[in-house]
Amino acid sequence: MATLPGLADVPRLVPHPTYAPGRTSLLTDRYELTMLQAALADGTADRHCVFEVFTRRLPAGRRYGVLAGTGRVLEALGAFRFEADELEWLGRERVVDERTLAFLADYRFTGSITGYAEGETYFPQSPVLVVEGTFAEAVILETLVLSILNYDSAVAAAASRMTSAAVERPCLEMGARRAHEQAAVAAARAAVIGGFAGSSDLEAGRRYGLPTIGTAAHAFTLLHDDERSAFASQVASLGNDTTLLVDTYDVREGVANAVAAAGTGLGAVRLDSGDLMGLAVEVRRQLDDLGATGTKIVVTSDLDEHAIAALASAPVDTYGVGTSLVTGSGAPTCGMVYKLVAREGSGGLLEPVAKASTLKTSSGGRKVAARRLDGDGRAVEELVVTGDDLALRSWEMPDDARPLHVPLVTDGAVDTRWTGPSGVQAAVRRHAESRAELPRGARRLSAGDPALDTVTLRLR
Amino acid sequence: MATLPGLADVPRLVPHPTYAPGRTSLLTDRYELTMLQAALADGTADRHCVFEVFTRRLPAGRRYGVLAGTGRVLEALGAFRFEADELEWLGRERVVDERTLAFLADYRFTGSITGYAEGETYFPQSPVLVVEGTFAEAVILETLVLSILNYDSAVAAAASRMTSAAVERPCLEMGARRAHEQAAVAAARAAVIGGFAGSSDLEAGRRYGLPTIGTAAHAFTLLHDDERSAFASQVASLGNDTTLLVDTYDVREGVANAVAAAGTGLGAVRLDSGDLMGLAVEVRRQLDDLGATGTKIVVTSDLDEHAIAALASAPVDTYGVGTSLVTGSGAPTCGMVYKLVAREGSGGLLEPVAKASTLKTSSGGRKVAARRLDGDGRAVEELVVTGDDLALRSWEMPDDARPLHVPLVTDGAVDTRWTGPSGVQAAVRRHAESRAELPRGARRLSAGDPALDTVTLRLR
Repeated sequence: MATLPGLADVPRLVPHPTYAPGRTSLLTDRYELTMLQAALADGTADRHCVFEVFTRRLPAGRRYGVLAGTGRVLEALGAFRFEADELEWLGRERVVDERTLAFLADYRFTGSITGYAEGETYFPQSPVLVVEGTFAEAVILETLVLSILNYDSAVAAAASRMTSAAVERPCLEMGARRAHEQAAVAAARAAVIGGFAGSSDLEAGRRYGLPTIGTAAHAFTLLHDDERSAFASQVASLGNDTTLLVDTYDVREGVANAVAAAGTGLGAVRLDSGDLMGLAVEVRRQLDDLGATGTKIVVTSDLDEHAIAALASAPVDTYGVGTSLVTGSGAPTCGMVYKLVAREGSGGLLEPVAKASTLKTSSGGRKVAARRLDGDGRAVEELVVTGDDLALRSWEMPDDARPLHVPLVTDGAVDTRWTGPSGVQAAVRRHAESRAELPRGARRLSAGDPALDTVTLRLR
Repeated sequence: MATLPGLADVPRLVPHPTYAPGRTSLLTDRYELTMLQAALADGTADRHCVFEVFTRRLPAGRRYGVLAGTGRVLEALGAFRFEADELEWLGRERVVDERTLAFLADYRFTGSITGYAEGETYFPQSPVLVVEGTFAEAVILETLVLSILNYDSAVAAAASRMTSAAVERPCLEMGARRAHEQAAVAAARAAVIGGFAGSSDLEAGRRYGLPTIGTAAHAFTLLHDDERSAFASQVASLGNDTTLLVDTYDVREGVANAVAAAGTGLGAVRLDSGDLMGLAVEVRRQLDDLGATGTKIVVTSDLDEHAIAALASAPVDTYGVGTSLVTGSGAPTCGMVYKLVAREGSGGLLEPVAKASTLKTSSGGRKVAARRLDGDGRAVEELVVTGDDLALRSWEMPDDARPLHVPLVTDGAVDTRWTGPSGVQAAVRRHAESRAELPRGARRLSAGDPALDTVTLRLR
């Protein structure tokens, strides 16, 4: 086992400053800790293990998945500690015994994690995260890792379809009110990874350095005695390049009032209801007639990727998207699982393991993954390689394949390039490049098979 | 305006200990703060306002909604403060001006909130929450209030359908891994309000006093050299009344190994894959043949309310539900909105207001709500009463109507009976009673119209 990461004294994780919600150790299913207790008692807790995160299938009709949340996993890992609060509660509720509490009190993850870079596209069976360490230290991360990756990746995949449909027009995330208040922050982050230009969520701006956007709601117009005084107030406060919401009463009057208040330098008008296609044409004509030729049109009414695509020929400049984005546009979670694929046997060697129903499909054993590209740099295949551990480690990546795994945590030390605002920026770039590399059909919105086949190569 | 709540010195909110994620003030759309800035500048910020939360429609085919999250709103309200961290960021990013920052630094909600008791069923147009105060103090709560109510109510509604389908059999929440890690805590809480007996999520147990459940995953069996040694270890650690997961290899052998390990006092076996109906029958027979007649059968494989209903005749004792529960079983968010319905005009009187497209449907104006009951105590109608403010305040509730609004916050002081573990307990009772009172057809799973019509009465 000399080639495996050491589990001795290594740098310890510290809580990440951008992970605001505090400690993460109890964001965990009870069975992780009861398994730990039994394994500590029977001596198997120290067995070296490899867990992999993958999905068996994409949501129906989707052509690719988008990995998001990896940076948040790394941030949350630093806060995965059992301090007096947690230990006292676990003991009082008799969730686990004293020996397990003592283990948890000292718990720090000292293993290693590799995975697809955040923002990378993925396909069925892609091993998007590989967690390696003792059973004890790796098993208890299952729930937290899956919670983060399943939600964030669901939003990023929806975002990517929307920004594909919008082509060059910016998309803005406005869905905070349709998601749990902390999920909303993650959704904004995942939306930006999927190509969105900004978010309405202030906490997402603060935590991840995302551009934040927004000017006024209908309530602001209704607060005032009339629309003109509301618009005059907004322009006085936010400048004439603000966005005025023009559909509280009558859109035609609203546009006239808007240009009267801000002049022809008005930044934008927003339409939040009605037949957006027809309205956009009328409003564009009215704005041009009034001389406001540079004023943009923002639309924000229950959009999804199909509605965005349907507006391609309308004179719309920006799309604001809420509900369908933060709920994954029909696929509000991914089916990612965290499976034990290899563990040290009683003889000390790493052996592949799998549940009976999945063993036949070769999901046992540690894996490496690569994307094969053709001569033009276009992706043609997802290659997943497994085999006995020694064979796998001596295998050489083919020249036409781009390796997909990057080191994220090495012997307990997090690579902080993947966390915080810089991690988001890296993920934005990775997603744009990965999506551009896919076969052309991958960006179609209609239902279809995954854009790449996943080919599993088993070494002997 | 003498009858309206005073806005002077009143008890100040304190952060609630169960609201772990810390301050909530930036879990807010940017436009709330830019509207505030403009209103502070033009003098309308102090206008007295009434905002109401309601939904225009239920998810397609649903017969009733379930209000959940109210207690969390009250907990989050105490943490809605702008301290140095938030103010520094807002100033640096020029989100708002100095005057607005000064207002936010002193911000405490001093208004009043009434609403349906948490757990109550609701229908289209039901005014489930009414927030009253100055524009400045009430408008900036919009995003946070909606995030919480929209997510929590989506989960509670799904949970209620599942527990209806399960009739007397307990349902257990196991969906943490399919939701954002903090949303998972809220989902567990909402599931229990919808009738679930417990949750796998430890943080939900700690924060809200929910029963937590869970024993072992397939990984625990795979970790060991064989299933027998895994089961022996689990029984040694957790007792013979534990639940053994019997489908890692062969279910028939698994059941035999389970009873061999734990004896006929084995608590339960869990089935997580395959044809659950057929398997449950076979496993029940095998358990009985082995003398384990008291051993229960838990099933946990991608269940939703329809799958639960389909298993009604199977010898299943407990349902574990994950994905479909925490994603609202096809309706992952509610359509609740936070609308300004009345505000002080320039003459100082409270006037109804509404967006043009909704004014015709009488949504303007403050409302009270009641559920009319027939002589047997069965609900027959959702009554929503509005009108000019004085008429509304002098209106008397009919004898056959149960009032739906309860005070939640009075002049800035939270009624803490609705928060924390006691709030959850109250909501569990309220939901059970409210659901039992609905017309019998309300619990059908098939698509249909709302179980009650909402009748709006406009007083003059």
